[in-house]
Amino acid sequence: MNETLKFLLDDAAMPRAWYNLVADLPVAPPPVLHPGTRAPLAPSELEPLFPRAVIEQEMSAERYIDIPEPVQAIYRQWRPSPLHRARRLERALDTPARIYYKYEGVSPCGSHKPNTAIPQAFYSKQEGVKRIATETGAGQWGSSLALAGAFFGLEIEVFMVKVSYQQKPYRRAYMESFGARCIASPSMETAAGRGILAQHPDSTGSLGIAISEAVERAAQNADTKYALGSVLNHVLLHQTVIGLEAIRQFDRANDYPEIVIACTGGGSNFGGLVFPFLGSQLRGGPRVRAIAVEPANCPTLTQGRYAYDFGDTAHLTPLMKMHTLGSGFIPPGFHAGGLRYHGMAPLVSLVVDLGLAEARACHQRECFEAGLTFARAEGILPAPESNHAVRVGIDEALKCKAEGRSRSILIGLSGHADFDMQAYSDYQAGVLHDHTYELADLERALAALPSAE
Amino acid sequence: MNETLKFLLDDAAMPRAWYNLVADLPVAPPPVLHPGTRAPLAPSELEPLFPRAVIEQEMSAERYIDIPEPVQAIYRQWRPSPLHRARRLERALDTPARIYYKYEGVSPCGSHKPNTAIPQAFYSKQEGVKRIATETGAGQWGSSLALAGAFFGLEIEVFMVKVSYQQKPYRRAYMESFGARCIASPSMETAAGRGILAQHPDSTGSLGIAISEAVERAAQNADTKYALGSVLNHVLLHQTVIGLEAIRQFDRANDYPEIVIACTGGGSNFGGLVFPFLGSQLRGGPRVRAIAVEPANCPTLTQGRYAYDFGDTAHLTPLMKMHTLGSGFIPPGFHAGGLRYHGMAPLVSLVVDLGLAEARACHQRECFEAGLTFARAEGILPAPESNHAVRVGIDEALKCKAEGRSRSILIGLSGHADFDMQAYSDYQAGVLHDHTYELADLERALAALPSAE
Repeated sequence: MNETLKFLLDDAAMPRAWYNLVADLPVAPPPVLHPGTRAPLAPSELEPLFPRAVIEQEMSAERYIDIPEPVQAIYRQWRPSPLHRARRLERALDTPARIYYKYEGVSPCGSHKPNTAIPQAFYSKQEGVKRIATETGAGQWGSSLALAGAFFGLEIEVFMVKVSYQQKPYRRAYMESFGARCIASPSMETAAGRGILAQHPDSTGSLGIAISEAVERAAQNADTKYALGSVLNHVLLHQTVIGLEAIRQFDRANDYPEIVIACTGGGSNFGGLVFPFLGSQLRGGPRVRAIAVEPANCPTLTQGRYAYDFGDTAHLTPLMKMHTLGSGFIPPGFHAGGLRYHGMAPLVSLVVDLGLAEARACHQRECFEAGLTFARAEGILPAPESNHAVRVGIDEALKCKAEGRSRSILIGLSGHADFDMQAYSDYQAGVLHDHTYELADLERALAALPSAE
Repeated sequence: MNETLKFLLDDAAMPRAWYNLVADLPVAPPPVLHPGTRAPLAPSELEPLFPRAVIEQEMSAERYIDIPEPVQAIYRQWRPSPLHRARRLERALDTPARIYYKYEGVSPCGSHKPNTAIPQAFYSKQEGVKRIATETGAGQWGSSLALAGAFFGLEIEVFMVKVSYQQKPYRRAYMESFGARCIASPSMETAAGRGILAQHPDSTGSLGIAISEAVERAAQNADTKYALGSVLNHVLLHQTVIGLEAIRQFDRANDYPEIVIACTGGGSNFGGLVFPFLGSQLRGGPRVRAIAVEPANCPTLTQGRYAYDFGDTAHLTPLMKMHTLGSGFIPPGFHAGGLRYHGMAPLVSLVVDLGLAEARACHQRECFEAGLTFARAEGILPAPESNHAVRVGIDEALKCKAEGRSRSILIGLSGHADFDMQAYSDYQAGVLHDHTYELADLERALAALPSAE
């Protein structure tokens, strides 16, 4: 009666190379620009921040890039992640749709983030780095890098957005359990942090500020590199293990998705799941409808501008062409902390600009409602971020019902909600609301976008 | 360099029947007695509490009992759970031991508890039950039954020990997300609860009290049954999927454990992992050293008496012969909430009494220390309960090092710590202590043991 089919792969069938969408795109991605000169950045200019192997991947146009064996060995601890057929959810919705979900919550940290934390730590270690500095908002990325640091014997410093540092002591305890050092951002430890605190002593921080602090820390210490958990090409590259596995798993299920849905904050979860499907399509394979789902309160793809912008608040990062709300935009409070970022991965932005993917924005209450429907059918309480994909997945399945058509729908379930129970508690108590940002704030942030000239 | 081997099974190789140790024991288990007459209990006398299929299993001496196909279908969502070779931990300890762990944290609730929640809900549904009442301490069992209730369309009422209800709002939110109703125990909803509150208005509850309330609720409502998450024969039976899988996985790893270690609270995690190995030994297979690890502050096997006792505080349950500290014993505070029970599964008690397993008691600080060592090597932060097994596993591995011998050690990792971060936070802040119970309290509780005559 109640059953969920699971399509696992043998370890032997796990991808041995990551997939790089750049190789199959009809246009070359716009170059990354130096924040001072506005000239295209030379790879060597990134060396203070990233290991050379990572910079090479960031700039690569090779279709496949080998996954180092030590990284594969760690991936095998939880990968391939399961692809489930959500038969109980289908029955609950009474839909003819065939709903699948690819579940990344089986990783040690409960999200997709270790897929890139592990290789980033590996390459740093290989090049003699002692310490990695990074930022974290919701804590999923910081936890994953803390784990990777423990595996490879690297010191990890996590600049944690102050409001999360205060409100999520358990995430902090988790990172510290793996030996990482957490610093509430803005902090007095960096010039960027001190600058913010001088102007706003009560600042509760933002991802943009925390990035500034971590970047500064790496730039000023020869034994320290920086690591980012989303946005950049190499991060999306590492995440493609998700989609590559899914394609093989669909093959085993004798099916193929017509619609592929993932949430987007910085874009790595979306890129990781969707790019291998888009690549296949661009090489003549079956078409997929790719849907990027973002929070209505941080609507980078649906309300932002496709323009050059900084990745951080203090304007220390290079300029990237991306969908952005302006680096000065501070989204109002909502629970999907992993989706609170003013910009979007340049590659995801380009894919949307080229019409290869569509974007949709959802409010948080409708997302939590969908998450509970999913949980009671499938037994997994999705992370608030993942609920965005679940919402649109359920909507598409209900459309199938209205049209009497059986479509195959793939939902990217990026993680579980074990560290997000306050959000579910608030939702069920009826105290979780759909605030909206002030249009004037968005217009001001967009007006302040840098000129690329 | 860093690698963890994983021994999965194909779904097709998953056990299709549970294993019942009673069939292979050299003696018959002592009968369960009626709390009033002290005569052996007739199966029909349990019908107000349990579905008939469950009562049959409770009393069965059949070696194998088929797992119903709908239960197998749900098991397949996360089973077979992985058996990992802990190579990174071996290297961190520099031991010649071969350390393995069987990881139940991959279940939807993050522990082994769904293995029995699913079949118990299935049998209730099959027999037309509308509602299941239960108790929960740490919340792992309540969460698992909430999940099972959502799958089968049953109402779930969870009497949650009041101190947990107050200190673990996230566990409560989790259960409520799956549609369960949580009641702080002692409550005014039952005579047992009202009786306690009349005497102790400030009572923060205990597992024994919560059991009394749930049992009363089921006994007085024809459409309501009771479910227990440990202790009873049928619960241990359902958990044997763990050990049955492990045996097949060791076969695939071309190895076999010399030592099998699991933590014990009520005994279902221990029985589930260890009984299939003991059964194989009793039928002429290889010998294993089975070690049950319990908290030094609730030392049922090492300091309790092997005697008839009640399972609850209000003395509503039948009398079982088991290792017990006395149903009036209240253990001092410690973080492994799943191990805070005055009694022990009658089958685990018998196995220890027969010398087929040994028992060891550990204090919580040494367990958390071991848990952090494990986490930094293997990437999984174990539940406080599981840390007890990890502690002894590491001790045995270090003994191998001292003796220069390579032994194969299997650790039962019953769950992860996502909902136990306060404990890790306290440990790392140095505010987690090893309180000890008062000997006089234990002596008083033991002196009050009922006579079986």
